[in-house]
Amino acid sequence: MITDERIQGIPATALAREFGSPLYIYDGDVLAARMRELRTLLHSRLEVFFSLKANPNISVCALLHAHGARAEVSSLTELRTALRAGIAPDDIIFLGPGKSRAELAACLDEGIAALVCESFGELALIDELAAERGTRAPVAIRVNPAFSVKGSGLTMGGKPRQFGIDEVQLLAEPDLARRYAHVRLMGLQVYMGTRILGEDTIVENTRRIFELAERLSAVTGCGLEMVDIGGGLGVAYFDGEQDLDLRSLTIRLNPLVDEFAGRHPDARLIMELGRYLVATAGTYVVQVRYVKESLGERFAVTDGGTHHHMAAVGIGSFVKRNFPVRLLSGDADPSGIEEWNVTGPLCTPNDTLARKVRLPALRRGDLIGVLRSGAYGPTASPVHFLSHGYPAEVLVIDGRAHLVREADRPEDLLSRQRLVPSGALSPLTPAP
Amino acid sequence: MITDERIQGIPATALAREFGSPLYIYDGDVLAARMRELRTLLHSRLEVFFSLKANPNISVCALLHAHGARAEVSSLTELRTALRAGIAPDDIIFLGPGKSRAELAACLDEGIAALVCESFGELALIDELAAERGTRAPVAIRVNPAFSVKGSGLTMGGKPRQFGIDEVQLLAEPDLARRYAHVRLMGLQVYMGTRILGEDTIVENTRRIFELAERLSAVTGCGLEMVDIGGGLGVAYFDGEQDLDLRSLTIRLNPLVDEFAGRHPDARLIMELGRYLVATAGTYVVQVRYVKESLGERFAVTDGGTHHHMAAVGIGSFVKRNFPVRLLSGDADPSGIEEWNVTGPLCTPNDTLARKVRLPALRRGDLIGVLRSGAYGPTASPVHFLSHGYPAEVLVIDGRAHLVREADRPEDLLSRQRLVPSGALSPLTPAP
Repeated sequence: MITDERIQGIPATALAREFGSPLYIYDGDVLAARMRELRTLLHSRLEVFFSLKANPNISVCALLHAHGARAEVSSLTELRTALRAGIAPDDIIFLGPGKSRAELAACLDEGIAALVCESFGELALIDELAAERGTRAPVAIRVNPAFSVKGSGLTMGGKPRQFGIDEVQLLAEPDLARRYAHVRLMGLQVYMGTRILGEDTIVENTRRIFELAERLSAVTGCGLEMVDIGGGLGVAYFDGEQDLDLRSLTIRLNPLVDEFAGRHPDARLIMELGRYLVATAGTYVVQVRYVKESLGERFAVTDGGTHHHMAAVGIGSFVKRNFPVRLLSGDADPSGIEEWNVTGPLCTPNDTLARKVRLPALRRGDLIGVLRSGAYGPTASPVHFLSHGYPAEVLVIDGRAHLVREADRPEDLLSRQRLVPSGALSPLTPAP
Repeated sequence: MITDERIQGIPATALAREFGSPLYIYDGDVLAARMRELRTLLHSRLEVFFSLKANPNISVCALLHAHGARAEVSSLTELRTALRAGIAPDDIIFLGPGKSRAELAACLDEGIAALVCESFGELALIDELAAERGTRAPVAIRVNPAFSVKGSGLTMGGKPRQFGIDEVQLLAEPDLARRYAHVRLMGLQVYMGTRILGEDTIVENTRRIFELAERLSAVTGCGLEMVDIGGGLGVAYFDGEQDLDLRSLTIRLNPLVDEFAGRHPDARLIMELGRYLVATAGTYVVQVRYVKESLGERFAVTDGGTHHHMAAVGIGSFVKRNFPVRLLSGDADPSGIEEWNVTGPLCTPNDTLARKVRLPALRRGDLIGVLRSGAYGPTASPVHFLSHGYPAEVLVIDGRAHLVREADRPEDLLSRQRLVPSGALSPLTPAP
């Protein structure tokens, strides 16, 4: 019972043959469908800003943009990526607690919608850079709220953080909006947490963010031209988790948006989405190189692992939980289902993509897919570990596979290193 | 009391000005001293093989080689690096549980000292590739021993693992050495664990590995031309840890080596060292961009963090423990010592280089050094996260700073991505 799964009609084996393995495959139909669903169900006043950190591939970004996404960026390269992907400066915002002078200057020079400012020090620096340019910088303040709402994978708010300015510090600044001549304080941003899978949590976050925005605006004089309610919408990865019900969420969220939008007819309302837009569209494809047994356990040693997909391996998690994995090509005989450890080529026992998962009997050459891998893949992984390098990325659109990121070859990895002349290395060289 | 620490006479501020920050600096004197100490104290029959995975920079590798180190590699790129650094094929071994066909072929074509084989499947593949070339491949078997010795950060042995072949499986193969016509089974390798800080543990590991090697050789017919006792020597990073005492270690280790070497006068005896050779020579230099307070805690937001130095941030550890950090340049007034969180530019609260460390009052522009950062630095970190890219690396030799790895620029990061033509992206494009 040989299987060879297809992505938009293209067999997995054909993709692996053409582009090599390991390989990231992004399904453009899934990306497009996600945006369509959001645009259909979300209140029309709520704009979707794609957080490039989840997947900064330029073609992924461009595809989401073609379906209505704007961009939230956090580095100079992400800004350049968004612009090159065709997103207008007025649809880009820049966040991050440690922006460099060069990054802030680029934001001003490109004329992006808002610099989301995270400290008083940054506010002063933006003012200085805008003064040099004879402009007024559009600045939204990121707020570290005094409250937190439970229900996210990593809760923000109510804790000492490097992000934003504490709510209480802002409330002590009644003339903040007038302090910097070259800054137009035009909005607020709050990010409450990540990997949220409860509709209630998102609704409650949003309610409290809108309330906080009006309260802070009244005290500080900060405008409400833009209110960014963060995001943090999660996807289910592990046993026992369930995906968000977008319909049920929007039924409760939209009235809050409607009410706030009605009171602030000119405000841009923003939801930042990263993982939620891209995670389900991606599959990490690895190929089995060796099968073996050790002390009663089965191992499939593959060509991929931690260096490309640290999240699936679970480095940084307290407990190893398995991403969904599936045999993409090989003998799928259901009578052969066994327990397998799917590991990688690295020299650490942590390099385990899936621990004790039930899969058909695996053989050399089989392709295994780690599903829901479109977010925080290679860019959130140590791709240079053991000098293996970045994997290829392929985006499938309308039944056609496009290579959207070349894999690193040994020459690429070596080309930016420099070998000191051997004369300088010799232990016999006298000190100058 | 302004300080500006020097590395071989060069002020930290001068290095940051010339090469930018964040920046990795490797002190060539420290690398050389480490090799000299090992060569002086270790039994002369025990060869030091540098595990490139700890720091694959070609100039670091070449410097260690100039002082007598050979190479243990685990990928095609690491093999090319070692060769280009001037290490002779006969002083290179290749390990790893998931070697590709191309990697094995390169090992044979270059004529390296030994392919360290980790499974029966790999043995068959090596045999096939050697047959194609009309040669006999020099192969050492990696053994997963039935025992383990406590005292390492990550213990191997006695557990089901993707590494090596179980001791008990080898003992069941009396004619293994004759089975593959194109394989010369010429040695054994055992790796017992990593980050070992107890001399006793290393001595006991070695004693048991030598015993195991003779026992397995007698049963399987595998030669003892090469016995690789692994390594795993650690360095102290955290409070309460103490560095190994190399003199005390070698006083007990050398007699074991002497005895085994005496019984096997032609055997090459190998110790693999990665972290131990390079960790103390490296400093990760970051610059403070913003200082702020949040809910009573002080934060110095710097330009570096997780993406360059995941080990210091502690992703993957259960408890956040601080690497040693020091103010390199700034006002070091001891009366101003305060508690600081040193964070990075990423958008996650985990991006914390040092949590609640005592440092002088920090200001924008100050340079902070994360010490003992020469091993598992950028190559073991998600350098593409938020598209920040790889940092510059500088090797200081004889009072001169050599740029040995250029920092990635936005153009470099974008150059390997491809933008799908906009016509292919449009949601209005009809399916083909």
